[in-house]
Amino acid sequence: MADRKLGKQTVYFENGPFVAGGAAVVGRKEGEGPLSEWFDFRLKDDRYGEKTWEKAESKMLKEAMMLAMKKTGREKSDIDLVLSGDLLNQIMSSSFMARDLQLPFLGLYGACSTMTESLLLGAMLTKGGFAHNIVVGASSHFCTAERQFRMPVEHGNQRPPSAQWTATAAGAMVLSEKRSSIRVDCGTIGKVIDAGVKDANQMGSAMAPAAVDTILHHFADTGRSFADYDLVLTGDLGFVGKAIAADLLIDAGMDAGLVKSRYDDCGAMLYDRERQDVHSGGSGCGCSAAVFSGYILKRLQQGDLNRVLLLSTGAMLSTISPFQGESIPGIAHGVVLEVC
Amino acid sequence: MADRKLGKQTVYFENGPFVAGGAAVVGRKEGEGPLSEWFDFRLKDDRYGEKTWEKAESKMLKEAMMLAMKKTGREKSDIDLVLSGDLLNQIMSSSFMARDLQLPFLGLYGACSTMTESLLLGAMLTKGGFAHNIVVGASSHFCTAERQFRMPVEHGNQRPPSAQWTATAAGAMVLSEKRSSIRVDCGTIGKVIDAGVKDANQMGSAMAPAAVDTILHHFADTGRSFADYDLVLTGDLGFVGKAIAADLLIDAGMDAGLVKSRYDDCGAMLYDRERQDVHSGGSGCGCSAAVFSGYILKRLQQGDLNRVLLLSTGAMLSTISPFQGESIPGIAHGVVLEVC
Repeated sequence: MADRKLGKQTVYFENGPFVAGGAAVVGRKEGEGPLSEWFDFRLKDDRYGEKTWEKAESKMLKEAMMLAMKKTGREKSDIDLVLSGDLLNQIMSSSFMARDLQLPFLGLYGACSTMTESLLLGAMLTKGGFAHNIVVGASSHFCTAERQFRMPVEHGNQRPPSAQWTATAAGAMVLSEKRSSIRVDCGTIGKVIDAGVKDANQMGSAMAPAAVDTILHHFADTGRSFADYDLVLTGDLGFVGKAIAADLLIDAGMDAGLVKSRYDDCGAMLYDRERQDVHSGGSGCGCSAAVFSGYILKRLQQGDLNRVLLLSTGAMLSTISPFQGESIPGIAHGVVLEVC
Repeated sequence: MADRKLGKQTVYFENGPFVAGGAAVVGRKEGEGPLSEWFDFRLKDDRYGEKTWEKAESKMLKEAMMLAMKKTGREKSDIDLVLSGDLLNQIMSSSFMARDLQLPFLGLYGACSTMTESLLLGAMLTKGGFAHNIVVGASSHFCTAERQFRMPVEHGNQRPPSAQWTATAAGAMVLSEKRSSIRVDCGTIGKVIDAGVKDANQMGSAMAPAAVDTILHHFADTGRSFADYDLVLTGDLGFVGKAIAADLLIDAGMDAGLVKSRYDDCGAMLYDRERQDVHSGGSGCGCSAAVFSGYILKRLQQGDLNRVLLLSTGAMLSTISPFQGESIPGIAHGVVLEVC
């Protein structure tokens, strides 16, 4: 294949695939945050007319996908494949979304790294000639995550300052072989990195080393640096994790000025730190899914950004692994989007 | 791309990718069943020297992958990517396997459909030029599944005759661009099909319609029928589900004689029905993963089989979806392996 190019962890694309467009659906709190205007649909009530939070999350993901198809002029019959995942046990939101959509479906689990996992897989399958159009996406919901991983929401437990707020949000993009203004340039597949963090209220610290590992491998594979990107954006390290990632990047020899000016984190952008009381910022698959599919795509389409490295970041703990003495391993996959 | 060919749900391959080989690791009960001799490693104790069953399952998956690499003459440094999943919340077995292997990793969740999901994705990524060698796999463990989805194992609850026995098993294959004696011919991606079954002891009934839907779409896309395959093998419908699938296939116009002689199910093959007391047969990601990676690959390599359609079958329920009134949706993905 003429355009085949393989780095150690990086795959390269030429002449597509393209991001036809995307859509983000967010909860009430996220719709009141600083990025509010960039999202396509803001819920008034996070139950979204459903009897359970899980069903609401599934409906949000489905709605984001339907909106992404509508905005890009695709019918369901144009879509060859749906790729998605979420945080819930047995990816309940995605499975039931796929039951309702009735399209060929491959379920993913990468914890909060799912958005770039689906984006990268979708890009490879489109470029490989196995689909004309693929819908990729991810979702999370504060109430479903809280009760699954932490405490019953009604309990109203106090959270330490390092804890993050799982975003009630879903994002979806349509990848296509058909030319549009944004192309997928390359992607770097992450490894599972375990820094030994055991505190589930320190997710940012647990995931930061994985994010940095993928960024450094990306730079080593591509020969690029921060200077080659308008923005390097991690998924949900939050304020604590973002600071750790920045320190690790500078320690690894990255230019401190560029790290400061060009590196950011979706979890640090989604909520107003002072006004919205989310402690260390946002988290969850939906955090980067909505920020990438809402905010970033529109800024690329408007020409405010030209080339970005997006890295959704996941904590691969399970609901029982901490009780078995395990630390929290992290993973991050990177995807480069570029205006063309 | 010259070899691009897309059916409605089917993707076609030419001149590879190839299955370099595979390995299956099974538990004690599975190692005493009728397929015993075909498996590469049989545990004497299902704890496998670990403190928890979950860690044992993760070790089995890792061992199957390491064995598959060893048998095919691959070093870890030859592998570009690992694709796998399991039944556990947050795919704990796969995540911790990937932490130990330290290779680029993409996690999947397709319940018991995971083996053909990983095989099909791996085939597309290899053929697309995004990897030289990919390890794909899946695992399950009776004790981890039982306590997560049903009852504490110590409780010793009585199981109805339609219940299946989750296999303690892991299977892995190495997919490669390099020619070998088995090639991936094509694959059919399934949709989530919900027949409305709500009884978690009727998994075969819940999944059979999804298996039949994928088989019929495969035949419609390819213009083939049962006559074109030496064997059509579903993953884990068990005795009850296999009978339902056969009936549905015959109702749909398939030749009854060919369905009887050429259709089988891994769940109906893994245990001795009379001697091993597993009620309706085997289930779990590891059931089809081990039967495909152990038994089927060797039979293809020996020339006993020439062309097979493999369909791992998954029940996309979650640990809480039944409590929210949901029925059990199913999914099945098909992959055709052929001697070349």
